[in-house]
Amino acid sequence: MSNSTGNSAISQAKQGHGLIDAPPGLKGVVVTETKLGDVRGEEGFFHYREYSAIDLARAYSLEEVWHLMIEGHLPNTAELAAFKEELATTRRIDPEVADALPAIAKVGDPWNPLDGLRTALSLACTAEGLGPCIDLTPEQRRRDALFVCNQVPILAANLWRARSGESLLDPDPRLGHAGDYLRMVAAESPSNGRARALEQYLISTIDHGFNASTFTARVIAATGADIGGCAVGALGAFSGPLHGGALARSLDTLDKIGHAENIDRFVRPRIEAGERIMGFGHAVYRTRDPRAQLLLEISERLGGEKAELARQVETRVVEIFSELKPGREIHTNVEFYAGVLLDACGIPRPMFTSTFATSRVIGWTANVLEQAHDKQIIRPSARYTGPKAPAALPQR
Amino acid sequence: MSNSTGNSAISQAKQGHGLIDAPPGLKGVVVTETKLGDVRGEEGFFHYREYSAIDLARAYSLEEVWHLMIEGHLPNTAELAAFKEELATTRRIDPEVADALPAIAKVGDPWNPLDGLRTALSLACTAEGLGPCIDLTPEQRRRDALFVCNQVPILAANLWRARSGESLLDPDPRLGHAGDYLRMVAAESPSNGRARALEQYLISTIDHGFNASTFTARVIAATGADIGGCAVGALGAFSGPLHGGALARSLDTLDKIGHAENIDRFVRPRIEAGERIMGFGHAVYRTRDPRAQLLLEISERLGGEKAELARQVETRVVEIFSELKPGREIHTNVEFYAGVLLDACGIPRPMFTSTFATSRVIGWTANVLEQAHDKQIIRPSARYTGPKAPAALPQR
Repeated sequence: MSNSTGNSAISQAKQGHGLIDAPPGLKGVVVTETKLGDVRGEEGFFHYREYSAIDLARAYSLEEVWHLMIEGHLPNTAELAAFKEELATTRRIDPEVADALPAIAKVGDPWNPLDGLRTALSLACTAEGLGPCIDLTPEQRRRDALFVCNQVPILAANLWRARSGESLLDPDPRLGHAGDYLRMVAAESPSNGRARALEQYLISTIDHGFNASTFTARVIAATGADIGGCAVGALGAFSGPLHGGALARSLDTLDKIGHAENIDRFVRPRIEAGERIMGFGHAVYRTRDPRAQLLLEISERLGGEKAELARQVETRVVEIFSELKPGREIHTNVEFYAGVLLDACGIPRPMFTSTFATSRVIGWTANVLEQAHDKQIIRPSARYTGPKAPAALPQR
Repeated sequence: MSNSTGNSAISQAKQGHGLIDAPPGLKGVVVTETKLGDVRGEEGFFHYREYSAIDLARAYSLEEVWHLMIEGHLPNTAELAAFKEELATTRRIDPEVADALPAIAKVGDPWNPLDGLRTALSLACTAEGLGPCIDLTPEQRRRDALFVCNQVPILAANLWRARSGESLLDPDPRLGHAGDYLRMVAAESPSNGRARALEQYLISTIDHGFNASTFTARVIAATGADIGGCAVGALGAFSGPLHGGALARSLDTLDKIGHAENIDRFVRPRIEAGERIMGFGHAVYRTRDPRAQLLLEISERLGGEKAELARQVETRVVEIFSELKPGREIHTNVEFYAGVLLDACGIPRPMFTSTFATSRVIGWTANVLEQAHDKQIIRPSARYTGPKAPAALPQR
């Protein structure tokens, strides 16, 4: 193709119709400005607002960090109390939605509950009557954003319950976001240790730069659509294997290895064959994923053999890789210890990705609120490379 | 903001972190190549593959043009027969989905049935077990694409029926796509004239360049997600007031005008005040929308006073505008006559946008199939403009 964009060169020459070639996948192309945070891949660092996301996860509650994302600053005691009260107002399940959940839950593959969440969230947003963002006041938009974030854990947990033949459980607005989710999934009050561990995982996965689901939410938001449509579309992108991925896979790998003495036998031939090892490698970081150390520490705090095995696997994979591929490095990504942590918290494997969605939706909606200040639709171009038009229609 | 992208200038200078500034809204930035078609706004021309979309709508059936979009060429007699047979295999409603439709239909604003369609389509795709595109063969992807396109009219029509207290109707795979939809909506076999009129409208709205919902479908597809997730996300963008819009609005305007003698009294003060008149103005065309003439002719063929009134309104708006704003031009867009045509076909107003979706989904899925050849995620960047990170966490 004579006017192909080429594979690596950044060709910025203007071509016919005033079009500008961009790098494949829009890599490095700035779509918007944001004050929500950033990822600095070379440094192995990411932040929410001006704070290290990992520092926040170590020291703050989910609700405090959520407030930071929405309001731009960490809340003082009075602000936090008010924010929790505000959150409680939409921490409920609509009766018509509850009625429909069993019918939604019984459809599809129980190992892929993200699809059911997409359907249930779409319905819940309709039931709540979310209006087009462009027609709303900032207060209404904020309310809708909090509503959507509240619905994801309630719907995810209750879809799981319905699927398991359990009765639905109402949320308990007195509990924290993470602890209440765990209570609904497991049907018993979680220990403080587990609730805090899950909360720290959730804080560390609220946002992560301008990933594909966040971008999807922004593109939909830029049409003026309701926040439900944005979140439902983002869930679609999130379900893509190149994005949200399958958090349970690295745990499955640990199960296959089973014991420390099997590590080398499992790992070496795979690295020799150039196969990917689940939980290693990341598109953005050139270092160990900054979330890995945090999640490892939390998993070790919760105890269990899997955290110890995972740590040993990481060590050996890194060592064997540098032995077999001198000069190259491999590092764990967030998936590797996330699976271990979620398992130790008592989250069933099919629910791992839905659990991830309960925090990422906070990032999506914060992005939608930011996008709402920009009244311009996001509408790039495609270059037509087919036969010259118009051609005469065939005779018949 | 010192590193703002500016509002109009195309600043392509590389800045920190190797980022490239793009024009606001990615305007004119080429994301991908396509052989599906293009819009040439200056000329008032758009095409599917190498043929004028308007010529196709005048001379061909929806199924023939659909085949053109998917296969790249218009079918011969044998190919068309085979394509119709292939389409018939997924022109059905899943019993579990049918069971859930009444519960979905009763939720939300009956004037906004696009939300219900989003939920129902999400559920139907789950019931069918659509897998991630990236894991499918081209044949499986194509099958899923046709399935999704078949579901939209079936679900839209039956949501309407359920909402109106009518019993659900199975599709009739022996009928054409347009005629069968009209039959399900109106519960009686449409005249050939109406079925063909709707079909021509649908053909002319299958695709229209790289619009925001099409781009949304592409972004989601690029994560490797299932075609259902792509279409559900695209529906979200489509529902945005800056995109799909409200097709019934221009018809409401005609109703307000009522008779030809009221036109000037209605139009003149609005143009003087700089108010927007529904059905006029388009982001892309600098001419009359090429779909307008076709839709006007079809509406006149169907008869009725509205087509005649609409034609007179167009004439006077154009005249008064050029009188009041010398040197500037205003033109009808596709919405203006679409409302008249859909009304004359017997489509209820709340169903106008859902009806539009029954054709546009063919464009979305054709784009998803094309995107599937490109294994790269679409992941642009945002420029962080907040306070410098990391800041120390506040003392407490």
